[in-house]
Amino acid sequence: MKILVLNAGSSSLKCQYFIDEESIASVTIERIREKESYTVLTYANEQREHTSTIKDHYEAFETLFSLLKESHIITDVTELNAVGHRVVHGGPYFSRPTLINTEVIEQIRSLIPLAPLHNPSNLEGIEVIAKAYPALKQVAVFDTAFHQTMPEYAARYPLPYDLYEEAHVRRYGFHGTSHAYVAKEAAKMLQQPLETLNLITLHLGNGASAAAIKGGRSIDTSMGMTPLEGLMMGSRSGDIDPAIIPYLVQTQEMDVEAVDAMLNKKSGLKGVCGNNDMRKIIEKINGGDDKSQLALEMYVYRIKKYIGAYATSLGHVDAIIFTGGIGEHADLIRKMVCKGMKQTFGMILDKEKNRSVSGEKSAIHNPESRIDLLVIPTNEELEIARQTKEVISRLS
Amino acid sequence: MKILVLNAGSSSLKCQYFIDEESIASVTIERIREKESYTVLTYANEQREHTSTIKDHYEAFETLFSLLKESHIITDVTELNAVGHRVVHGGPYFSRPTLINTEVIEQIRSLIPLAPLHNPSNLEGIEVIAKAYPALKQVAVFDTAFHQTMPEYAARYPLPYDLYEEAHVRRYGFHGTSHAYVAKEAAKMLQQPLETLNLITLHLGNGASAAAIKGGRSIDTSMGMTPLEGLMMGSRSGDIDPAIIPYLVQTQEMDVEAVDAMLNKKSGLKGVCGNNDMRKIIEKINGGDDKSQLALEMYVYRIKKYIGAYATSLGHVDAIIFTGGIGEHADLIRKMVCKGMKQTFGMILDKEKNRSVSGEKSAIHNPESRIDLLVIPTNEELEIARQTKEVISRLS
Repeated sequence: MKILVLNAGSSSLKCQYFIDEESIASVTIERIREKESYTVLTYANEQREHTSTIKDHYEAFETLFSLLKESHIITDVTELNAVGHRVVHGGPYFSRPTLINTEVIEQIRSLIPLAPLHNPSNLEGIEVIAKAYPALKQVAVFDTAFHQTMPEYAARYPLPYDLYEEAHVRRYGFHGTSHAYVAKEAAKMLQQPLETLNLITLHLGNGASAAAIKGGRSIDTSMGMTPLEGLMMGSRSGDIDPAIIPYLVQTQEMDVEAVDAMLNKKSGLKGVCGNNDMRKIIEKINGGDDKSQLALEMYVYRIKKYIGAYATSLGHVDAIIFTGGIGEHADLIRKMVCKGMKQTFGMILDKEKNRSVSGEKSAIHNPESRIDLLVIPTNEELEIARQTKEVISRLS
Repeated sequence: MKILVLNAGSSSLKCQYFIDEESIASVTIERIREKESYTVLTYANEQREHTSTIKDHYEAFETLFSLLKESHIITDVTELNAVGHRVVHGGPYFSRPTLINTEVIEQIRSLIPLAPLHNPSNLEGIEVIAKAYPALKQVAVFDTAFHQTMPEYAARYPLPYDLYEEAHVRRYGFHGTSHAYVAKEAAKMLQQPLETLNLITLHLGNGASAAAIKGGRSIDTSMGMTPLEGLMMGSRSGDIDPAIIPYLVQTQEMDVEAVDAMLNKKSGLKGVCGNNDMRKIIEKINGGDDKSQLALEMYVYRIKKYIGAYATSLGHVDAIIFTGGIGEHADLIRKMVCKGMKQTFGMILDKEKNRSVSGEKSAIHNPESRIDLLVIPTNEELEIARQTKEVISRLS
């Protein structure tokens, strides 16, 4: 089955072409709508870059399809079985990947207030293709869908009851495709059925979230109604006292939009130490920078607290999975997260093993550890391809 | 030593008179500034109530002192050694009980933006007494002081670094007097030095907070810059996605003040099920009310998550202490909190014992429990009296 996986951002388009589960080629287009848009095709271990002016998503798709044809990766768009789209917010409507039709498009549109930065671009990608290639099947794979299994007591906020029904205010959770993917990979590594496993998955990238996964179902996750809640991130604050927002509005001559922008773009690691690149932060710590040290300690401490919290959600924990750029590559972070976690949680890291692992699938715990500690590179594109294939297979 | 402990609210004045550690009498004045102010004196197992018009805090103190004199509890105000005031917010300035002078008053005043509902009334109480009885020593005991020992990584928020220095934005924590009191009582019950103990204290009243206490020092607590953060409370939300605030402002025609008021007064248990009295909630659950059931499950789940989180902060946990109206009296809540906490945490409740305990100091764990589970009635007034006495003793 030939599937194109698409992630359409406001000024970018990322694409991976799969035949069954094999990634054949990828195309990234950046700076759409700017004078010097940048395109790179990766195929057969070669990269072809070029710059041109791509004035909108329609032109971006034309560029994408031309590139795939010119390079003889596909002969024609009609040979694709489906396009799988990453869609950030599925709200309360979508608990699984869904074949896109007019109704689905309208539902995604109605969720724009919940994800004003993401759903509009995701939708634009869908609509441009629907118009240009109406016969091509499209599937939406939602970042929120995996977490729709959360019990009500974990999903609801302690707010006036009606706010859920009237304004959709509840925890949705994000990074669902990644959490789902690494949970399944963990079960393979552990050679146990996913249905029997209690897992904590830590997706630590520029955005970061933790999830508690019981028998393959998400029962809690740290991101909330939006991707702002939870762990400390690259430039997002994560959990704070919500009263800080009215306090800043009242005392700092900021309006609520300015505070919102600050929490999303100028907080987290960047806010505390001026940097959101973990490699640079670690370099600066080695050079004696106190703010970088503080930022790192806060980052790790907040991950540990979620591990403890989710241990109560799950009752017991079989394995903890590190994924995302930082989870896969930053052995220092993994070491710090596991420190002091032996007495209560029985977590024992194999320090040598941990140090040697960067980006490859590996167990990093000592044999005596009560909890398995795993590094598993995430692959959201592959997971979207798989889920898209499942939806298409069910149709025929 | 004769000490008057005062808690001055915006329309109320609560007072307890101590000789050394013995509570001799208490006076509560409510509805100050209203037509029918209500006063009750409790002394020698008798209660004397009356209503009158008390137009401000000055008159409230006059009423208080007249009552104490009329009832021959004191002969004259001059015989008091000191007045100990509960002051809610000590900001970054106060890490211990402090003898009040003009400078201290100004510092408390400068913290009003951080505690606009509490510090002004606390201050009014202090100033009225300073004016009427300038020779009387006054001591401020801060709700925040006990938590000033938190390490920086637990106290700071992942926000732009300068917000701490410029606007005092950090975690302060509250209920410190209560957490400190029950921690000391726990050490007595366990017959171990407080310095050797790792404790989690759960103050579950209408306000609610958890604290992680290592060797007698608070290392983390759930309330934050304000008393809004943390556990689900009677009418306060506790933790939510901070992005909910801008979302409501943008989509629900609420301004930020209205959202703030909603989070503080119409959320928590009351928001979810319409009720903030735990006894009534449990009655309604028995009558089959789904919203009350949901509210209870959310309330308990959020407590459990903090226990797990603080187990990571502490490394290991010696005892968990339940206090506050709900912690002391609601055996159902204690039972639900301990459920499913055996495998990872080794918490085993003695169910019979738990059921029989309501408001009295007692251990409620099974002998095989790895963590001691204790019910300890809090006594903030006694703790304020003790701390006031310490400050006064150091002077002479």
